[in-house]
Amino acid sequence: MTEPFAAVEIISAKRDNGELTDPQIDWIVDAYTRGVVADEQMSSLLMAILLNGMNMREISRWTDAMINSGERMNWSALSRKTADKHSTGGVGDKITLPLAPLVAACGGAVPQLSGRGLGHTGGTLDKLESIPGWRASLSNEEMLKVLQDCGAVICAAGAGLAPADKKLYALRDVTGTVPAIPLIASSIMSKKIAEGTSALILDVKTGSGAFMSDPLKARELAQTMVELGKRAGVNTRALITAMDVPLGLTAGNALEVRESVEVLAGGGPADIVELTLVMAREMLDAAGIKATMDPADALKNGSAMDVWRQMISAQGGDPDAKLPVAREQHVVTAESSGEIIEMNAMAVGISAWRLGAGRSRQGEAVQAGAGIEIHAKPGEQIKAGDPLFTLHTDESPRFERALEVLQGAVRISSTGEKVERLPLILEKITG
Amino acid sequence: MTEPFAAVEIISAKRDNGELTDPQIDWIVDAYTRGVVADEQMSSLLMAILLNGMNMREISRWTDAMINSGERMNWSALSRKTADKHSTGGVGDKITLPLAPLVAACGGAVPQLSGRGLGHTGGTLDKLESIPGWRASLSNEEMLKVLQDCGAVICAAGAGLAPADKKLYALRDVTGTVPAIPLIASSIMSKKIAEGTSALILDVKTGSGAFMSDPLKARELAQTMVELGKRAGVNTRALITAMDVPLGLTAGNALEVRESVEVLAGGGPADIVELTLVMAREMLDAAGIKATMDPADALKNGSAMDVWRQMISAQGGDPDAKLPVAREQHVVTAESSGEIIEMNAMAVGISAWRLGAGRSRQGEAVQAGAGIEIHAKPGEQIKAGDPLFTLHTDESPRFERALEVLQGAVRISSTGEKVERLPLILEKITG
Repeated sequence: MTEPFAAVEIISAKRDNGELTDPQIDWIVDAYTRGVVADEQMSSLLMAILLNGMNMREISRWTDAMINSGERMNWSALSRKTADKHSTGGVGDKITLPLAPLVAACGGAVPQLSGRGLGHTGGTLDKLESIPGWRASLSNEEMLKVLQDCGAVICAAGAGLAPADKKLYALRDVTGTVPAIPLIASSIMSKKIAEGTSALILDVKTGSGAFMSDPLKARELAQTMVELGKRAGVNTRALITAMDVPLGLTAGNALEVRESVEVLAGGGPADIVELTLVMAREMLDAAGIKATMDPADALKNGSAMDVWRQMISAQGGDPDAKLPVAREQHVVTAESSGEIIEMNAMAVGISAWRLGAGRSRQGEAVQAGAGIEIHAKPGEQIKAGDPLFTLHTDESPRFERALEVLQGAVRISSTGEKVERLPLILEKITG
Repeated sequence: MTEPFAAVEIISAKRDNGELTDPQIDWIVDAYTRGVVADEQMSSLLMAILLNGMNMREISRWTDAMINSGERMNWSALSRKTADKHSTGGVGDKITLPLAPLVAACGGAVPQLSGRGLGHTGGTLDKLESIPGWRASLSNEEMLKVLQDCGAVICAAGAGLAPADKKLYALRDVTGTVPAIPLIASSIMSKKIAEGTSALILDVKTGSGAFMSDPLKARELAQTMVELGKRAGVNTRALITAMDVPLGLTAGNALEVRESVEVLAGGGPADIVELTLVMAREMLDAAGIKATMDPADALKNGSAMDVWRQMISAQGGDPDAKLPVAREQHVVTAESSGEIIEMNAMAVGISAWRLGAGRSRQGEAVQAGAGIEIHAKPGEQIKAGDPLFTLHTDESPRFERALEVLQGAVRISSTGEKVERLPLILEKITG
């Protein structure tokens, strides 16, 4: 077969700050997926895109091309309306865990395709896999059945969904081409659009622990994704939320499941509860679902917990099983007395990662019990010698490198200095 | 072995417009040559370099790293001083052929390592290979012997010379990362410095038929290369010369050899003779060679021709053999009468390429006899129906595509319009 384009032409066009045409974009994404365009050609194009940008038409077409590289799911057989969420990733961000069953308890259907963690933020699937017996991989039929029976399903995206994105994502990781808004937005949205949800709420993190620490960049990413969703007929909204300190009081796999179960039991840290409720209301509203009860009530009265237990069981997990606990613990205490002024989310995330909660290469195993418990957060008073963090790992040699990164991560002041924190929800973008 | 850097760190530094450190540059060039850094990582770095640039320190270190990837030649055993030249490539640019023996005839030693053509300009080795029996590949010992016996040698660079550049050159070709001054300058100069010449004259082409059609870019490239030469102890000068019309009256392999032999016999087109003499005087002067005779005399009195014959014979060629002639000829005539105002060098180059004089993929064979003879040039009067070009090829179906690109390449005016031509030598850069 004769190819209609040469890769070098397309690379050169973007290198010289030109716009790529629709046929050029369709071809290069398809030809890369087929292996006709080589990795070294695609990576130089990705770097040109990162540095020279793409306009909205190009990003939208690129997203469509990635969707068209695979299958598109369809939930029209369901009696309920679908709503999903996506977070750009933050330290201690376990919101999906209580949120999916909560929205289901209020009358929505949540088809949540999740990923594993890479780097300093955990992955939803890694967290759920700490529950004995739970499995992430479902066939499309199994997924539909769990969704029909429970109203929510959290599982791994199959190989058939946006295969172009899978290949590009792995390439970007090793070629320094991750932090480009057109590439991040098209990667996220191609999967979410192919997943077939009718409404989507994006949680775009900003602050020291986020991939997009600059709030202006976070807003640009949010606007781009909302526009992509709208063009594809998915009612999409974005919340820009704080990731300057960790969310909740845990970072790690089993540790975060335990905290999520507390929220589903009507307790849990205030920030997790607040963000879960705000997201739930947005999802129900965007999907046009007439809620069967208020989300706050569904947490209090056990309805959300019932869905959680049912959903975990449906994927082989035992909701009553004891969660894994790490073999070794180490307590970090406060060095002085006063008010906690700052707690660097990135440092906590990297520390949990080094303890074994995360992976540095795709395919690496993670420790279910590893991670960090936080005993006090910014705004709280603490006394010298009081516990600040408990570090958990199965391998005690990991403590040293985990402690290293926590040096200076927490600032305590006794001079009446004010805590400077971002509001939990900075902005809402509806396009 | 543990590597001191990760490729992604270095790519990200350049992507974010940072300077690469000396150890980073040394490592990435070496690690790429060893295969530890993958093609897709190097190509994204090359695109970041192309778009964000490198400063003089970075370019110089990059060049050194490429030199250090291989051997460095040494001509201290020679009784004569060495001088070499390099052209950035132009249509009909056969200057090396008469120039190398001419400089030898005047007392210099010319160790010229050349390449093959790719694209619209021919390669010196391709041209010489049209001489029956002549071979381009010599061992280092053979090269030294020819240089000692004849005073000049033109041959292929061995695999041991700057292997990092060979690998990078092939990668740049398929990844849209050719037109970057830091990469062009370091590629050319790493080979010339490793080749061990003591003086170097660069012929940097500008105008419609040059790779650097913008004169400002040509000057920047020239200045960069002169500076790289000086830093490496090679007395380097650059001439910026015209490539708006083809050089001489032929473009093609055997056709250009024939024209070169005419120059060595004391005849030939004025532009070829002028540029050859200017280059020869610069080479002799830069190397500090006390010329045994004036270059113009050496062309007239047969001394340069004697060296040529000796040099061709030493590499297996027969200087008296009949040169190959293409099987098919087609004459293009003038469509109107008047003065030739314009003759697009790029169009003539591409046409000769399409006739079979050049290759579109590395390793492809070229036709010895293919190419174009030019019967009249800008500034000359012509009558409608007079011959303008004779096209040569072994395969008559090639005429059609060759003629296509010549459409509109020549402009003839009878209104007294002035010819706008670049001067043959625009500028001299000595650093």
